[in-house]
This record gives sequence, C-alpha cells and structure tokens, in this order.
Amino acid sequence: MRKWYEETAENGDVVISSRVRLARNLRSYRFGSRLSDEDAVRLVKEVQDAAPLVKEKDGKRYFLCNVNHLSEVNRQAMVERYVVSPTLAGKKQETGLILSEDESVSIMINEEDHIRIQSVTAGMDLEKVFAEANFIDDILSEQLSFSFDDRFGYLTACPTNVGTGLRASYMLFLPALTMTGRVEKLSEEMGKYGVTIRGLYGEGTKSQGCLYQVSNQKTLGRTEKEIIANLDCIVDQVIKQERRRREYMLQAGYDEIEDKIFRSYGILKYARQIGVEDAMTLLAQLKFGADAGVVKLKEDVNLHILMMNIQPAGLQKLLGKNVGSSVRDRARAEYIRNKLPDIERGQNS
Amino acid sequence: MRKWYEETAENGDVVISSRVRLARNLRSYRFGSRLSDEDAVRLVKEVQDAAPLVKEKDGKRYFLCNVNHLSEVNRQAMVERYVVSPTLAGKKQETGLILSEDESVSIMINEEDHIRIQSVTAGMDLEKVFAEANFIDDILSEQLSFSFDDRFGYLTACPTNVGTGLRASYMLFLPALTMTGRVEKLSEEMGKYGVTIRGLYGEGTKSQGCLYQVSNQKTLGRTEKEIIANLDCIVDQVIKQERRRREYMLQAGYDEIEDKIFRSYGILKYARQIGVEDAMTLLAQLKFGADAGVVKLKEDVNLHILMMNIQPAGLQKLLGKNVGSSVRDRARAEYIRNKLPDIERGQNS
Repeated sequence: MRKWYEETAENGDVVISSRVRLARNLRSYRFGSRLSDEDAVRLVKEVQDAAPLVKEKDGKRYFLCNVNHLSEVNRQAMVERYVVSPTLAGKKQETGLILSEDESVSIMINEEDHIRIQSVTAGMDLEKVFAEANFIDDILSEQLSFSFDDRFGYLTACPTNVGTGLRASYMLFLPALTMTGRVEKLSEEMGKYGVTIRGLYGEGTKSQGCLYQVSNQKTLGRTEKEIIANLDCIVDQVIKQERRRREYMLQAGYDEIEDKIFRSYGILKYARQIGVEDAMTLLAQLKFGADAGVVKLKEDVNLHILMMNIQPAGLQKLLGKNVGSSVRDRARAEYIRNKLPDIERGQNS
Repeated sequence: MRKWYEETAENGDVVISSRVRLARNLRSYRFGSRLSDEDAVRLVKEVQDAAPLVKEKDGKRYFLCNVNHLSEVNRQAMVERYVVSPTLAGKKQETGLILSEDESVSIMINEEDHIRIQSVTAGMDLEKVFAEANFIDDILSEQLSFSFDDRFGYLTACPTNVGTGLRASYMLFLPALTMTGRVEKLSEEMGKYGVTIRGLYGEGTKSQGCLYQVSNQKTLGRTEKEIIANLDCIVDQVIKQERRRREYMLQAGYDEIEDKIFRSYGILKYARQIGVEDAMTLLAQLKFGADAGVVKLKEDVNLHILMMNIQPAGLQKLLGKNVGSSVRDRARAEYIRNKLPDIERGQNS
C-alpha cells in the first residue's frame, strides 16, 4: 500500500505536507507527568481497546503497538517518518500507538496528553486532514470519555493546547528563503500572527534540507476553522514570497544556480560517504532545481522520501542492523547513489 | 606527431617533466634592456637564419615565428604549454622563436638574454634534456658568436645566470605535501641547497593543481654536471617525502580520501561552469587518486594535458575565438565533462 508521502500533490514545490493533531485527555486519569506507571499501562490498554471500533468505522487497516517496547532504532525511525512525535518516542512510561496502514492516521497514547490524534497528507490540504482527525475523534469519543469544559473546551496537559486541542501544521520547503537568509525575519513576522516556524522534527529541532514546520501557537478562544484559516492565510503569503524569491534568484543568476544544482547532483552521485546534514543540503538543492525546471531527473524520484529515508534510524532499518556513524555515512552515500537517476538540463534552461 | 607531454614516463606520479634552458648572448649586440629596437629586429633575424642548420643537424622539423607579432591569446597559449616563457610572451620588442614540431625544443630569441635554448621531456630525465640543449647550443655556436669569458663562462643579462647559463628544472606534482601544508617548509629547506620551488609558470606565478617548478638558483662556479647532480639529489628527497606522505595519508584516512577524490570527480563531471583554479585543484585530487590506485579512470586520459588545456588562452584556442571569463568558465566545464571518462574504484580499495 502506498504511504501518504508517496502521493503527489498540489503546491508540492513549497508545501510538502499538511498535518493536524488533536490533543485529548480522559476524565478518569491524571494528566501529564502526574500519571502513575500503573495508570499508564491501563490507559494504553483502554485506548487501544477502541481500535476495533476505529477500524470498523474508518474502513482502513490499523496496526497497534506499544512504542516503549520497541528498539531505539525503530522508535527513531518512526519519528523520522513523522509517525510518532519525538516526545512519544522518548518516553519511558508505557506508551501506545494505533497506526493506519498508509501511516496517514496515527493515534499516540500517553504522549504529553493521553491521546494525540494525528492526520497527515501530502501537499496543502488542511481541511482534508482536519476532517479525518475529527472523524477519528468522533469515533474514539463513542467509547472513551474525554475531559471537556463547557467554558474552556478540551482540557490538556499544557495550557497552550486548551480549547480545541488542535495544532495544524504545514511542512514547507523553502530553499530560496533559506539561501537568501530570510527565514529568521519571516519567523519574527509570523510570530505576530500566532504562527511559529520550526525545524524538521518540531520544537527544538534544527532545520535540515530547507524543510520547516509551520504551525499555529494557540488554540484557546478560537474555533478550528479560524485556526486553519489563519494558518492558511499566513502560509499563502510564505508560498508567494518563496516563489517570488525563486524566480528572482533564477532571473538574477541562472547560470550560477544551474551550476550549483548540477554540482550538488555530482557530489551526491559520487560521494563515498556523506553525513545527514550535508546530504540534506545537497538534496534540497537538487529538489529546488527539479521543482524549478532547471534540471530534470530522467526517472521520477520523490526527493522528499529520499530525504526521509537517509535519516540515521531509517537508514539502519534499511540496512537491517545497528551500525556506527561512519558505516552509516558510507551506507547513506551508497543508498543515494543507487536511488538517484540520471540527470539532464530542465525545460527552463 | 605526439608532443613531448603526450609521452608517458617513469616517476610520472611525482615528476611531470624535466627541463633545461641555456642562456646565451651574442658578442655583437648590447645585453638585455640596453638593446635598441632596431638591433632587436636584426638579432631575431640573425638567430633565425641559423634555423636551417639546426634542422639539418637535428633532423627534427622546426617552425619559426615572431612571437610579438602573434595575438595575445596565441602568445598566452604558448606560455601555458611551456613553449615560451612569460617574459618572452610579454615583450614589446621584436622577439623570435624556433620551435621543434614536438615542442620539446624551443629557441627563444630576445628573451631576457639574446637566446634561451630550452629542452623538455616528460618524467624525470635531466640528462636527456641537457644533452639535447647542449647539442642545439653546439649547432648554434657554429654560426653565431656567443659572449664567453674564460674566467666567468657565459655572460648573461642577469648575474645569477653567468657561468654555465644553465637552469635545470623539474615540474613536480605534490598533492600530499600540498594538502598537509608542507610545501613552505620544503621551500625553506631547499633554499639552503641553492634550489628554489615556484608556481606553475615560473617566477612570481602561483601554484595551481599542486604543480610546482623546482630549479637550481645559481650557475656560477659550478659545472653543468654538478648543477644537475645537486638538483637530482634534492628532488629524489622530495619524491621520497611526497610518496611517504601519500602512503601515510592513505593509511590514516583512506575512506575520507577516497570520498574526496570521488566528490572531486563528481563536481568535475557535472559542473556547468568552473574557474581555472577550482578545476586545477579538483583535477589534482583526481590525478592523485588515479596515480595512487584509489580510483581508476575507465579510459586512459592524461590529466596533466587536461590541466594544460583548460588554461584560459589554450581554452580560447580550442574554442577558436576570444571569449570573456564567464563564457570561458562554461566552456571549460563542458570541455572537462566531455574529456573525463567514467570512473570506478581502484585496485587499492
């Protein structure tokens, strides 16, 4: 079955994916860090008991697992594929997951909140993923009793999530704004509108490969529709800015950029060992060039998937064993060499 | 006919070529800058009149030209192929050249001295080139009267050349000593033994592509044999040091070096524009890798010739027209892309 990230999508030159997650908590358990280890085990079981109902109503295939029982590499690989959050993967207490086969829906249990319902899709379509998450929320609430206050809305472990419990986010690919050093300024401007821009794997993580997560900061006092409309409005502006910058860069220095993109390809195609940051930067160059029609890859390759697969844990899963970083760097180079098709000049040249 | 630099030679991993030049002056003309423009014309004619005798005795085909009448590009291209010195190419007065078809023998007229006889060969063989230059010297002296003092020897425009008038030099390829930053120290040590190390095109020019000219500084008070023996002794040491460094580098960090060499190839193979310094550095990496068996080029290509041909003027001659530096950088990249064969891992990997 195709994963959600294997689908192609509109606005794919800037918007890699759209994601929402809903924070929910059960009335009958203590919140957050005050949850006892015994209660964590009970909680995971109680929520996973709702899985058959989810399968029945949603019609998708779902898998269950207890994330804290998995190996470090498997947990990390799930983070790299955005299936679980770094918080869930890092937790020592019992944690659980209900995951759809295409990995588009993931229900995390005993993350910061008791339940985090996540829905994700390729390209720019928050309405679709919000509808999906909402649908899952409705199913779960048939069997589980959520903590809800008539005045505040859904109650959550962290006050910033109280209300709708909704975080909506886009993953954006911003090579032109990154190369011209404009992301920091953009971040300040967005902050004024309650929107935040972060690195690849959320809070506190660095940006790699010109990839960023943009999401709403607050949920209290706003409806879901308002949150999504506000984020869409900001992201529309970012898309315009990014595209304008790309056009400008190509007009001002096409030859230099074409050269840079081809050189990035040359290095990726011949390197014998490569670190993840280096590879992400070069792949971002190449993706930018392919999106802008500066170069054409002779076979269709999803460079964003390649970016996901070369992350440390995913690569180890592909290798089928735990290896040190120097072995990984050589395996990464080999993986990229094998995956990259031939290249030629694009239609814009 | 194959040029001298198209021959392969012993010690070719370090010694690219061997060269001698003999400085001679005619009794009947003023020396150096005191030569009048009219006398320069007479001088060039008088020496070129000896060309038939050279042809007859040497048996090679020879071409004559008046270098100052050539275009800037043609003069510069001759410098890049080491056929004439930068001094001769830059002179405004009448200058002349008698050049053998394989470009191994070049008789420069009205350089710093009235006559500079140059002989060059691939690899390490000063005795051969000295014998050749000596032979030409003998032929010329049958028809021309050289300025010679019984006490000092041959008289020259610059005192450093008085005596034998001999400068012997090797062109060395020193990637390992360059990469480990040891050339400067080497230069100091050599200075103590009257040997100097310089950039690619002699005095005052920069090193490119890890290529250096090593030559004797003084000629007075020493016989030709002593000069050559002294230089050979020093260069033998340099060869040993360079080879030891290469071995050490390969033992200490084979994977890193292999990666660097392959990346250099990848950039050379895909760049759309490239400056001469950048290209020389990357080609030096590749030559080092090929010499050391780290990589194998699937077809035999003389990388030193490639290094000569991508110099600015030579490239313009190949293009058949004068072009600006940005067009040249694109032409250089295309030329290299077309010339470089496929690559694979070498027998050492």
